[in-house]
Amino acid sequence: MKVVRTVAELRDTVEVSRRQGRTIGFVPTMGALHAGHLSLVEAARSQDDIVVVSIFVNPLQFGPTEDLAAYPRPEEDDLAAARAAGVDLVFLPSVEEMYPPGRATEIETGPVALPLEGAARPGHFSGVATVVAKLLNLVQPDRLYLGQKDAQQVAVIKTLVRDLSFPVDVVVCPTVREPDGLALSSRNAYLEGRQRTTATVLWRALEAGRRGLEAGERAEAVEEKMRAMVTAEQGAELDYAAVVDPDSFGTPAAAGPYLLVLAVRVGRARLIDNMRVAL
Amino acid sequence: MKVVRTVAELRDTVEVSRRQGRTIGFVPTMGALHAGHLSLVEAARSQDDIVVVSIFVNPLQFGPTEDLAAYPRPEEDDLAAARAAGVDLVFLPSVEEMYPPGRATEIETGPVALPLEGAARPGHFSGVATVVAKLLNLVQPDRLYLGQKDAQQVAVIKTLVRDLSFPVDVVVCPTVREPDGLALSSRNAYLEGRQRTTATVLWRALEAGRRGLEAGERAEAVEEKMRAMVTAEQGAELDYAAVVDPDSFGTPAAAGPYLLVLAVRVGRARLIDNMRVAL
Repeated sequence: MKVVRTVAELRDTVEVSRRQGRTIGFVPTMGALHAGHLSLVEAARSQDDIVVVSIFVNPLQFGPTEDLAAYPRPEEDDLAAARAAGVDLVFLPSVEEMYPPGRATEIETGPVALPLEGAARPGHFSGVATVVAKLLNLVQPDRLYLGQKDAQQVAVIKTLVRDLSFPVDVVVCPTVREPDGLALSSRNAYLEGRQRTTATVLWRALEAGRRGLEAGERAEAVEEKMRAMVTAEQGAELDYAAVVDPDSFGTPAAAGPYLLVLAVRVGRARLIDNMRVAL
Repeated sequence: MKVVRTVAELRDTVEVSRRQGRTIGFVPTMGALHAGHLSLVEAARSQDDIVVVSIFVNPLQFGPTEDLAAYPRPEEDDLAAARAAGVDLVFLPSVEEMYPPGRATEIETGPVALPLEGAARPGHFSGVATVVAKLLNLVQPDRLYLGQKDAQQVAVIKTLVRDLSFPVDVVVCPTVREPDGLALSSRNAYLEGRQRTTATVLWRALEAGRRGLEAGERAEAVEEKMRAMVTAEQGAELDYAAVVDPDSFGTPAAAGPYLLVLAVRVGRARLIDNMRVAL
């Protein structure tokens, strides 16, 4: 496994692979790799000749009051995990390498980026779209692998790729969960003691929402049910609970498909999760 | 010469060329091709295996009060000129093909896009950056050929390519001029009768500005001199005259290099021109 830290090295390596006609699968990450990330690597290995993983805690997608400084950066563990998973190339740039002084360009993806995470985290999705555009230009992958856990991020990146015609296929892989339903997330590392149990409220509320929709309840009633479950949970603070269209993140069509989405604070962790329901 | 009108056909054609290892030179245009555009084609032919020209009057870069509807679209003449110049592929999409319903993504390139043309034409450079990003993703050229006549557009696109790491080299070619100094522009077609002579005031003012800088005059004095010359010209209406840094479009360094920039209305035509001066 090759580890490169500069844009120049990355370009050289990608250039060689492309000239050899080998397909590139790309998994962008912020590190703190867990089984969710590794499932994306596995998907990429099964479809592409070369698997590239980027590890970059992107400051553009963090708000001024968010956890940029605290975000875990276990570089040695990440490299060991990537090596064990069969990654061919890790791109591990510094902030200065990605964003030299004078950098100014930013991308906005419109309505899909405005509600929910976009409203709770102003500037977040612009930061996501901008870094993904840059990474796509650097890695030039054939396929981009994303996790369904960050559902609105997936919708934003699909919008980016479609609107700007990036020559890449977006492959979305299912959320990987603990046995009790908690979605894997690097931010689960913030959970202490009983908070770990409290955090399962996201899964329980999504399951209750799914059952509600399947029983014919209206979206508004289902949202209310999820909100009530989270609010009733000791140690959990509701950020939002909603039923949206999975692509536009606007109002779902009456016949679905629906996406149940949740954001909940548990201790220092702000956790998100979602579930797609087609009736 | 191949003419394609859909994204799908373009992608297929580009894919074949790339697989053959042939380099692609790309000249984006809004059509109404003149000798300035053709000089870009010639530069591309001299360096690349395949020359792609896009012809697309991009609505995103026109303001609501601008000349989008009136902008010339001499398709037959353009195709004949491209064929005669040795273009290999013309991409001639409809607005619907480039911007299907739901399109929302836009790119902002920051400070370089704010003054002068950016201030006179709100949204213009966002429209330019967005269409160029999309065209780069579609054509995947090795080199992008731009004309120095649109100097701030060049600075905006260089910023876009640098900040988002598009894998392309930007080649800037000199402005092509009529014998009396008038810069070639598709908008010169709007000039009627005596306006054609009046329009040479841009070149005369730039030349006077250059002589001023070379004689040691300060940038502010040179700006004032250019403004006075345009204002004194019957039938010419000054939009702006400025001396800026050629890359940032901010205040130039004391020792230069300088870029003299002008925008002037003559009849229905809004004309721009510029001159680089290094002492």
